[in-house]
Amino acid sequence: MFEHQRVSPLFTDYYQLTMAQAYFKGGHHEETACFDYFFRKIPYSGGYVVFAGLEEAVRLLEGLRFSEDDLSYLRSLGFGQDFLDYLAGFRFRGSIYGMQEGEVVFPYEPILRVEGTLLEAQLVETLLLNCLNFQSLIATKASRIRRSAGERVLSDFGLRRAQSFGAMSASRAAIIGGFNSTSNVLAAREYGIPPVGTMAHSYVESFPSELEAFRAYAKIFPDKCTLLVDTYNTLKSGLPNAIRVGLELEQAGHQLKGIRLDSGDLAYLAKKARAMLDEAGLAYVKIVVSNQLDEFVIKSLLDQEAPIDIFGVGTNLVIGKPDGAIDGVYKLASAAGKPRLKISDNLKKITLPGEKRVLRYLDADGMFYADCVILSDEASPQRMVHPFEREKSLDLSGLEFEELFHCHMSDGKAVSGRVSLDVLRDKVQARLEKLPEEHKRFHYPHIYKVGISRDLAGLRDSLFKSYQNFI
Amino acid sequence: MFEHQRVSPLFTDYYQLTMAQAYFKGGHHEETACFDYFFRKIPYSGGYVVFAGLEEAVRLLEGLRFSEDDLSYLRSLGFGQDFLDYLAGFRFRGSIYGMQEGEVVFPYEPILRVEGTLLEAQLVETLLLNCLNFQSLIATKASRIRRSAGERVLSDFGLRRAQSFGAMSASRAAIIGGFNSTSNVLAAREYGIPPVGTMAHSYVESFPSELEAFRAYAKIFPDKCTLLVDTYNTLKSGLPNAIRVGLELEQAGHQLKGIRLDSGDLAYLAKKARAMLDEAGLAYVKIVVSNQLDEFVIKSLLDQEAPIDIFGVGTNLVIGKPDGAIDGVYKLASAAGKPRLKISDNLKKITLPGEKRVLRYLDADGMFYADCVILSDEASPQRMVHPFEREKSLDLSGLEFEELFHCHMSDGKAVSGRVSLDVLRDKVQARLEKLPEEHKRFHYPHIYKVGISRDLAGLRDSLFKSYQNFI
Repeated sequence: MFEHQRVSPLFTDYYQLTMAQAYFKGGHHEETACFDYFFRKIPYSGGYVVFAGLEEAVRLLEGLRFSEDDLSYLRSLGFGQDFLDYLAGFRFRGSIYGMQEGEVVFPYEPILRVEGTLLEAQLVETLLLNCLNFQSLIATKASRIRRSAGERVLSDFGLRRAQSFGAMSASRAAIIGGFNSTSNVLAAREYGIPPVGTMAHSYVESFPSELEAFRAYAKIFPDKCTLLVDTYNTLKSGLPNAIRVGLELEQAGHQLKGIRLDSGDLAYLAKKARAMLDEAGLAYVKIVVSNQLDEFVIKSLLDQEAPIDIFGVGTNLVIGKPDGAIDGVYKLASAAGKPRLKISDNLKKITLPGEKRVLRYLDADGMFYADCVILSDEASPQRMVHPFEREKSLDLSGLEFEELFHCHMSDGKAVSGRVSLDVLRDKVQARLEKLPEEHKRFHYPHIYKVGISRDLAGLRDSLFKSYQNFI
Repeated sequence: MFEHQRVSPLFTDYYQLTMAQAYFKGGHHEETACFDYFFRKIPYSGGYVVFAGLEEAVRLLEGLRFSEDDLSYLRSLGFGQDFLDYLAGFRFRGSIYGMQEGEVVFPYEPILRVEGTLLEAQLVETLLLNCLNFQSLIATKASRIRRSAGERVLSDFGLRRAQSFGAMSASRAAIIGGFNSTSNVLAAREYGIPPVGTMAHSYVESFPSELEAFRAYAKIFPDKCTLLVDTYNTLKSGLPNAIRVGLELEQAGHQLKGIRLDSGDLAYLAKKARAMLDEAGLAYVKIVVSNQLDEFVIKSLLDQEAPIDIFGVGTNLVIGKPDGAIDGVYKLASAAGKPRLKISDNLKKITLPGEKRVLRYLDADGMFYADCVILSDEASPQRMVHPFEREKSLDLSGLEFEELFHCHMSDGKAVSGRVSLDVLRDKVQARLEKLPEEHKRFHYPHIYKVGISRDLAGLRDSLFKSYQNFI
């Protein structure tokens, strides 16, 4: 997420700090609390979300410290010295349970459960939401683009249109979702991603002629040379010049790596380019395309059999267009050992109380069939009920299931070591393979079933009733 | 943009570094070059863009240094030692001319002109685009929301849904565009913005009762207490409890500051809340609302005379929904003293060659009438021509005009000191007041006229012809 994986704890909403002071002054800041992280709406009108950002969130929590600068700023805002002294020694010492990074997840099911003192578990809300919401948004987008691109190479070219330093997390999440490389050199270094790039139009224009520009580049990068061919005229100038340089490279014992198309009709030009390259004996030269790509454009290009090898995807990937955000929330599930509830006129906005975990049931083919949210000490139930439509229920008896909740952080320490992005990317693809096709359609995908156990439904109903009496 | 206004020069596209090495090895890296920053499409289907991010970009360029870590990473990628030695001493020593931060700007006109060596002016492309595109996107969105909100208070509540650390720039740009405060404490500290916040539902739920929660908060923040009233039931529980605590505060010589509504129909509830508060003698208590607000929702609420004092705007502001990006580009205008051109089949994608500046013509009332792009050594022209439709021209004779281009950076040094965000915000409002209403409509705004001088059109045509011959 951030360079060197550190962030000031002031990267939070002001009310987290005022609430923390209120808990502290009231003397109940060290009561236990449990919060759920979940979302309500899948972006892109899609059928699933790829959960991402967890490892980075865990590292950021491990390193969370108030510096002298942080504390003196808070002092200037009027926070009390006793509270600031407490913050000076603050460490996140809570525990986190939940889905693994790269898991395929669905609305209304808890993805993480954060346990700790009321103060610490509340204080980290904003940081967790900021980190997990955005990376899940981008990993999900990347997975959709990967679905369209099949086995072809996908590169993240989005840095210049990314939302400021959000570019770093975007590049990380793009790899998790299925991308191969990035143009963002800092992200490449921080996350161990292969950095890639070709050349800009300005490079070509800065030379007296296109041919001289190509030759100069080929001389310096004889084995890593991808030529941008649309500065003047793709078919009449760019490609003939690229072919000439390609043949010159061959003569010198090298190989031209690729040509890039960045404008015009990419299917038409890719076909023409492929034919011209093949004709010249340069069948090994790859065709790279860029320019406003997304999962729909790529699918359409490949449906028309455009012979494209590498897609450079920018804006639409790194800002998660058109949604730009996942509505992930962080809700209190229990405090001081008692389950808690947020009431709403809208049943969909009533939270699920108590400490919970999630089981994933498989069909006879081992494919994902349904997820059931249960209380954390419950056994696998025989039947689950719809979270909002009480008349609907689903028989789970006899089905195989997976435990989706694992411990990620225990008493403030990460439970496992770093996982490389390659491993996470493979994991996402493996999980998506077990998700039936109908949930992966771009248009009107089938809704995956998420239910709750009868015990959980009962707890919610009884709490709801007690609050109604109380109001 | 980034904490402490520093960023590694590796926060760039890989091809900037490969091109730089190619220039360096070819021995023409110190030729002069001039690039234009401009955009083609206004986001939000709007009629203008508020230009933002400049001062931060200038500071980032001033501080740009390759660290040992940066260089050793580049070495590991195969960059040559002679080039790395050059980068070790690299400083941006170029100059920047153009519009001031906070200016109202339009498509196809140069906003900035970056002059320097070919290597340095090329190398900073990605950083400039990343910084300026995003902050202009958000400042523009904020100015639209300000337009709907009139004199009411606007607070940025977007951190949890922002695109990772992009939240920092979003908070800065929101203020420039017209916001008053932010919930993002780190941005508040970095940029001198007032931090604000209320309380979360979880705070209320963590107490045995809503009344106890409110009392505890009021005790600790007796003069800065805004109570969230929709945790259980806004009208039956939240407001009666808030009024009770408000009256208790009054008795103790304090004043309840506000109540916050975060769900339900905000117009209906705000009217009911206002009546109940007034009835109880708490006419001074402000009503704060939040929940999926944007310029359209706020306008609609106020059209219905909802008595709202403060709007907390989150997701739609900080991600610049629905566009999420401005398509700003950075194009070579001249190199080695000669004007350069990017050709395209699409006239709109042909660049404007040569070193240029922009004049803004005013109508008889002193309102903005048209912008004309001219060559930098030209005098104010009598007539301007449409950039793409040659048959259209506009008489400028006798009109007052403003020089929009100023020097911002000279030989790598910022020309002026820091300007506070309050000053920039006032400037934006003053400039927007001079933009006729028809360009500020949300729906189908009138297109502001941007033209080019005949000399510039002539230069473009002659270069275009010479390239056509050349191809």
